[in-house]
Amino acid sequence: MSGSTDHPSKDSGAPRDFSAIFRRIGPQVAALNDFMRSQVEGFEPEIRDMAAYCLDTTGKRLRPALVFFSGWQGEGVVSGDLVRAAGVIEMVHLATLVHDDIMDGAEIRRSRQTAARAYGSDAAVLLGDALFAQALHIAAQFPTTEVCRIVSESTRRVCSGEIMQTLHRREFSLSMADYWRIIDLKTAELFRSSCYLGSRLSRHGSEFVEAAARFGRHLGIGYQIYDDLLDFLGEEQRTGKTLGTDVATGKLTLPLMILLERLALKEREALIAAVREGTPGALAASKQRMHELGVGPAIVRIIEGELAAAEQALAPHAVLSPVPLLLQLGDLLKAQVKALQAPPVGPRPA
Amino acid sequence: MSGSTDHPSKDSGAPRDFSAIFRRIGPQVAALNDFMRSQVEGFEPEIRDMAAYCLDTTGKRLRPALVFFSGWQGEGVVSGDLVRAAGVIEMVHLATLVHDDIMDGAEIRRSRQTAARAYGSDAAVLLGDALFAQALHIAAQFPTTEVCRIVSESTRRVCSGEIMQTLHRREFSLSMADYWRIIDLKTAELFRSSCYLGSRLSRHGSEFVEAAARFGRHLGIGYQIYDDLLDFLGEEQRTGKTLGTDVATGKLTLPLMILLERLALKEREALIAAVREGTPGALAASKQRMHELGVGPAIVRIIEGELAAAEQALAPHAVLSPVPLLLQLGDLLKAQVKALQAPPVGPRPA
Repeated sequence: MSGSTDHPSKDSGAPRDFSAIFRRIGPQVAALNDFMRSQVEGFEPEIRDMAAYCLDTTGKRLRPALVFFSGWQGEGVVSGDLVRAAGVIEMVHLATLVHDDIMDGAEIRRSRQTAARAYGSDAAVLLGDALFAQALHIAAQFPTTEVCRIVSESTRRVCSGEIMQTLHRREFSLSMADYWRIIDLKTAELFRSSCYLGSRLSRHGSEFVEAAARFGRHLGIGYQIYDDLLDFLGEEQRTGKTLGTDVATGKLTLPLMILLERLALKEREALIAAVREGTPGALAASKQRMHELGVGPAIVRIIEGELAAAEQALAPHAVLSPVPLLLQLGDLLKAQVKALQAPPVGPRPA
Repeated sequence: MSGSTDHPSKDSGAPRDFSAIFRRIGPQVAALNDFMRSQVEGFEPEIRDMAAYCLDTTGKRLRPALVFFSGWQGEGVVSGDLVRAAGVIEMVHLATLVHDDIMDGAEIRRSRQTAARAYGSDAAVLLGDALFAQALHIAAQFPTTEVCRIVSESTRRVCSGEIMQTLHRREFSLSMADYWRIIDLKTAELFRSSCYLGSRLSRHGSEFVEAAARFGRHLGIGYQIYDDLLDFLGEEQRTGKTLGTDVATGKLTLPLMILLERLALKEREALIAAVREGTPGALAASKQRMHELGVGPAIVRIIEGELAAAEQALAPHAVLSPVPLLLQLGDLLKAQVKALQAPPVGPRPA
């Protein structure tokens, strides 16, 4: 998914019809964009420009897409409830990005300055807070408390995952169980609740709602692992964000964990020391060794496992109209993961 | 109010019966403390210790007191709705403190390490987020969306005020209008909504609810100005927090603004430069000049004006049982402000 809707890749070997899936929700996304713009008015006049800066992004609107597809009501049908729910989820997501970029020290996101860079990290902490609060305020406009309840719980879980990740920084004893728990919370949770809310607001039965939520969760896990791999193997220009930040900030992700597993003791210790101390060249060295030791293909297999679990969750509901659309989203991620593998992985040493 | 319920002052000349008012809500505050402790279970197991650290404070529970007094239902009557609303408001407040302490670089709050100091500022950003989210999650347990709506809006307004304050740091052109707007949002807003929710949940008519909210707002403004004065004139040991942080962080507050107004051009410019550059001695110098130029008494008059406006809001509702209790809270602040004035203000130069 990534930047591909904005920048169709010419050389990746990925299918060229990525945008076809997103075209299906063109009217819904247009309504969402209008909604997001209108929400700027909900902020205090003094901070509207800052809120607008955060809300007006060229982002992929991936979580909104999950809301719209899970609650699919037919071609071109724009449901106000789905648009509002998508807006709530996207605003929570944008708030987490504002805070993430503070900790990562990231300067660029979606090809422009992060809020932390533009306004300073103190203001960015508070701006993220204001976005969270406004998201919940919009959630409170539904007739019942259900959306508030789900979104606030998801937000707490996302933050908990982020806290764990932060506390485990530069800690190379992080277990696989910890890693899975962290990405389940910090990423998969919001994918899960997007699918839950979309299907629920379109009045699907609880069995499908639960199945859609499970689909979202597995897709989210797969997506996060893809994103972690991208941080090593992606190209900054195409992704529109600062890459290599995981190693730079000492964030232990699956690619590095698997690489460390595959290294002999001495080399493992040397790499750990290099990453811990932020030695220049640590990133290039790990990329090179990942390539040589086949870490990329191993990660791809893991992602494919998650995508298979996602598909399986929907299998009993194949007749429902959201299902083929959700499955296409899974296929899209699968194709992107493949595309990442296509060119030679990592720079060759001189 | 301040630390006085925990540390009755021996030498301040203030009335000795401060705690009498708070004793009236002993059962409600006990229920609130139980409720807050029980809420720790609502967090992910991995972050419960951190949540407990933030929630288990010796804080004054001032905003909860406003909820309980505004919704007073009789001696010893503990309403579950009021306890829950008080818990929501207090949790939002504690979340803002966690984030405030990051920007202020404060190490001590309520006589122990701040969360930023204990867990690092990155984790503290996320922990504050998790507290916000959980507060809204509790708010969503009310039968209607009203509490969510009010609390999320208040939270956004509090954050907006904090953003403005942050952006105006070390900016000595801050106007009085800006200052009032900032404290109205960052402090008075939560006082206002505490009174609104307390009276509303006890099913008072809309006229009293609005009056209680106005009372809370003016009390909050008075309280913030008192707190700003305390940062100059207080004693660290008694307040249990790092003082002098406003000058240290370049936060322009009313005492400094009034002092600057009263200084001749040359001295004003010198003080501005000293504060801007963080010159050691800038705090001591401003305290000394505040004393000489009568800034303290001027501030006290302004606080008394706010407290008079607070009282006035309740005047048409004198027969209602919450009113005498709320008025006593106003008197309590008045007495504390006086107590701050009693000893010689600021250190004398050698």
